[in-house]
Amino acid sequence: MSTLAYIHANYPRFLTELKTFLSIPSISTRPEHQPDMVRAAGWLREQLLSAGFPRADIMPTDGHPVVYAEWLAAGPEAPTVLVYGHYDVQPADPLDLWRTPPFKPTVIGDDLYARGASDDKGQAFLYVKVAEAFHATAGTPPVNLKCLFEGEEEIGSPHLDPFIRAHTDLLAADVAVISDSHILGKDMPALVYALRGLAYVEVAVTGPDHDLHSGIYGGAVNNPLNVLCRMIAQLQDEDGHILIPGFYDKVRSLDDAERAELARVPFSHDDWLAEAGVRAAWGESDYTVVERTTARPTLDVNGIWGGYIERGAKTVLPSQAFAKLSMRLVADQDPAEITRLITAYFQQIAPPSVTVEVRDLHGGNGAIVRRDSPAMLAAREAYRRAFGVAPVLMREGGSIPVVATFQKELGIDTVLMGFGLPDDRLHSPNEKFHLPNFAKGLETLVHFMTLLGESGARG
Amino acid sequence: MSTLAYIHANYPRFLTELKTFLSIPSISTRPEHQPDMVRAAGWLREQLLSAGFPRADIMPTDGHPVVYAEWLAAGPEAPTVLVYGHYDVQPADPLDLWRTPPFKPTVIGDDLYARGASDDKGQAFLYVKVAEAFHATAGTPPVNLKCLFEGEEEIGSPHLDPFIRAHTDLLAADVAVISDSHILGKDMPALVYALRGLAYVEVAVTGPDHDLHSGIYGGAVNNPLNVLCRMIAQLQDEDGHILIPGFYDKVRSLDDAERAELARVPFSHDDWLAEAGVRAAWGESDYTVVERTTARPTLDVNGIWGGYIERGAKTVLPSQAFAKLSMRLVADQDPAEITRLITAYFQQIAPPSVTVEVRDLHGGNGAIVRRDSPAMLAAREAYRRAFGVAPVLMREGGSIPVVATFQKELGIDTVLMGFGLPDDRLHSPNEKFHLPNFAKGLETLVHFMTLLGESGARG
Repeated sequence: MSTLAYIHANYPRFLTELKTFLSIPSISTRPEHQPDMVRAAGWLREQLLSAGFPRADIMPTDGHPVVYAEWLAAGPEAPTVLVYGHYDVQPADPLDLWRTPPFKPTVIGDDLYARGASDDKGQAFLYVKVAEAFHATAGTPPVNLKCLFEGEEEIGSPHLDPFIRAHTDLLAADVAVISDSHILGKDMPALVYALRGLAYVEVAVTGPDHDLHSGIYGGAVNNPLNVLCRMIAQLQDEDGHILIPGFYDKVRSLDDAERAELARVPFSHDDWLAEAGVRAAWGESDYTVVERTTARPTLDVNGIWGGYIERGAKTVLPSQAFAKLSMRLVADQDPAEITRLITAYFQQIAPPSVTVEVRDLHGGNGAIVRRDSPAMLAAREAYRRAFGVAPVLMREGGSIPVVATFQKELGIDTVLMGFGLPDDRLHSPNEKFHLPNFAKGLETLVHFMTLLGESGARG
Repeated sequence: MSTLAYIHANYPRFLTELKTFLSIPSISTRPEHQPDMVRAAGWLREQLLSAGFPRADIMPTDGHPVVYAEWLAAGPEAPTVLVYGHYDVQPADPLDLWRTPPFKPTVIGDDLYARGASDDKGQAFLYVKVAEAFHATAGTPPVNLKCLFEGEEEIGSPHLDPFIRAHTDLLAADVAVISDSHILGKDMPALVYALRGLAYVEVAVTGPDHDLHSGIYGGAVNNPLNVLCRMIAQLQDEDGHILIPGFYDKVRSLDDAERAELARVPFSHDDWLAEAGVRAAWGESDYTVVERTTARPTLDVNGIWGGYIERGAKTVLPSQAFAKLSMRLVADQDPAEITRLITAYFQQIAPPSVTVEVRDLHGGNGAIVRRDSPAMLAAREAYRRAFGVAPVLMREGGSIPVVATFQKELGIDTVLMGFGLPDDRLHSPNEKFHLPNFAKGLETLVHFMTLLGESGARG
């Protein structure tokens, strides 16, 4: 039986197993889900061992553990591929907006609904099943495989970089591959060659040392909520241009060749509006929507709170106001430097009547990788065979900071072989994975490993 | 035994009874406290009957009921005083900042700590006990008394105006008196002749029709949180001057005589900073702190929320953002007109990529009353006798909309005989009532009714 035939024959079981994986609420940011994190890691390790990996370990970090597996049977002359994925997921709230329970995976039509279906359990699980298929048919995979599945991607991977630095020999490989992004449409595969970085901060504004009655003190006490809004309004103009001094200093500008290439990325304005659920696009008018969301830095308030937020009215002038703010960064912006710049700017524009504290929640570097490496060429051909059409080369707006770490610590490029779709509602209620992409993802990865193994190219 | 001697002899019992009143969590804004509202009203009615009122009824409204009592034994030639108070209280949150449980009244030193201690149960209860003292000593009070205690003051009295309009004969009086404000210090009584009005709205900004991933859509979708902050920043300049077109059109300006009089209100900048818990005052530089907080309109954000507000980081670009906003108004600003102006302004400044909805939560008219009526003169002398010093005439920054209603519907002025202190922490954790003021309040009201009865003046 061919490897592809094995996949087709066993697909229903693969899907059942994926549902089991998705039913574990491995929300890394919530301490109360610690037992679920342990459960998810253990389940994944068992799966890797069953798939044929001779080694699969749960390796501790100072946070949630890494699941590491390796299978080096292709021999020292064959390329070694380092697979990265994550078994943690985002919180599922607001829960009342889910049509099906987030941790009770449910198939409706061609889609599988669950938190983590696309980001990233569904995509990470592909590698386990492809390895099993090679095991059952060819005996071993055509390349050497190392799998690094972490449990802290959704909280900014605080312990991943130290883990990689401490295990550079263990993780040594010719190329990395990650499936944690999306393609452009059901029949429109894509390969991502650039990712944005991230700087995420929490701002606290303190005015009076206790909550006041707005009727008694209003007009003579600077209200921290009003101040916070005024300060946030000074971060960005109405067009989305960021006003923090020095913010754009390190931004690598787009040259005409790349802008022309990005302009070839298929893009339907109407489809995009429908997916985003907005009436109109917005942002820097000198750039296209594709450029704004992938090649330009941005600033978003991700959360804001303070004062009375229950039902009804309370005339309070609160002591404190809070916001969570994140900036997407592009090469060569450094998250630590950007965090310093926004902190200094907040301190500079804060009125003397309040205290402002800016806390660094997390950051990650962006990355750009080569488009013509042997692994990229193998990936392009693999997509073409599985989808019947060659993939588009594109940038991605989100952050996968580990790509920058792999470049720095292991000296390797990463091939970003996404199988999600743009409307997968990552981080939102009703996240889903399009099941035909699950099937094509398995096929694509079989082709990719076969082609890369045949090329014999080390990298 | 004189009426004053009766009060002194029975003071410990009065205090015990007040504690019972304060232990009922009659939070009008929370539906789950509906049974407590009923309990508080029933308890108050029993107290009024025990105090000697021949009539005390619980009268329904479309919301929480009114407790109405009357005692007209002073005869048709004697003045009739309409007492207003409220038996509902503000929510007690944030609960973790209370040093003693908000609904377990606790005496520490000279202060009684509880939600509603000063606003307004402690002050409203004075009238019950003064009536009881007259009953036990003189047989009847020296003036005709009508008591109107409502249960919806803290939610903007939505059913009080209709109640008053439907019962103008029942409530007919020569003057109203309310104890729901504060004096300037333990030994510095004050009489309030002006109150600010209030317009309170809730703003909802809707952008995308579902929560988005900020990495995928950030930069091309106008974030409702950023938009809300930018719009709030456009309501007011950094000095507190309000930028809503037409907002100041009806503001009655302060003349030199009144500014001179307000300048005589004792005011210690250092004490005020300590009470407010701020490092510096803020606001319109052309006006004093006293003027800013009592004679000028203001705008405060009372609550704001949206996006991810739990622990940790979530890179969400949320669908919606919300704020509660209130404006304190001065004569002759109309709350309904101000709500229309801010609604129109929000619609005007909203970018086309979002939808803005402004909801009117409640409003109340401000008021100014005559300073030289017979009742005001009786009140001034009563304070002088109880406190040993004549009261300061002042404006109040908060809102007691019923004063405007009494002027309009019953044609009577209101004497605002406050007994709270500026640091009572109304609406905040650790609200308290200064017990010597409870005792002096009883004495002041005995003098007031006696003097007004002796004057025979109808109004």
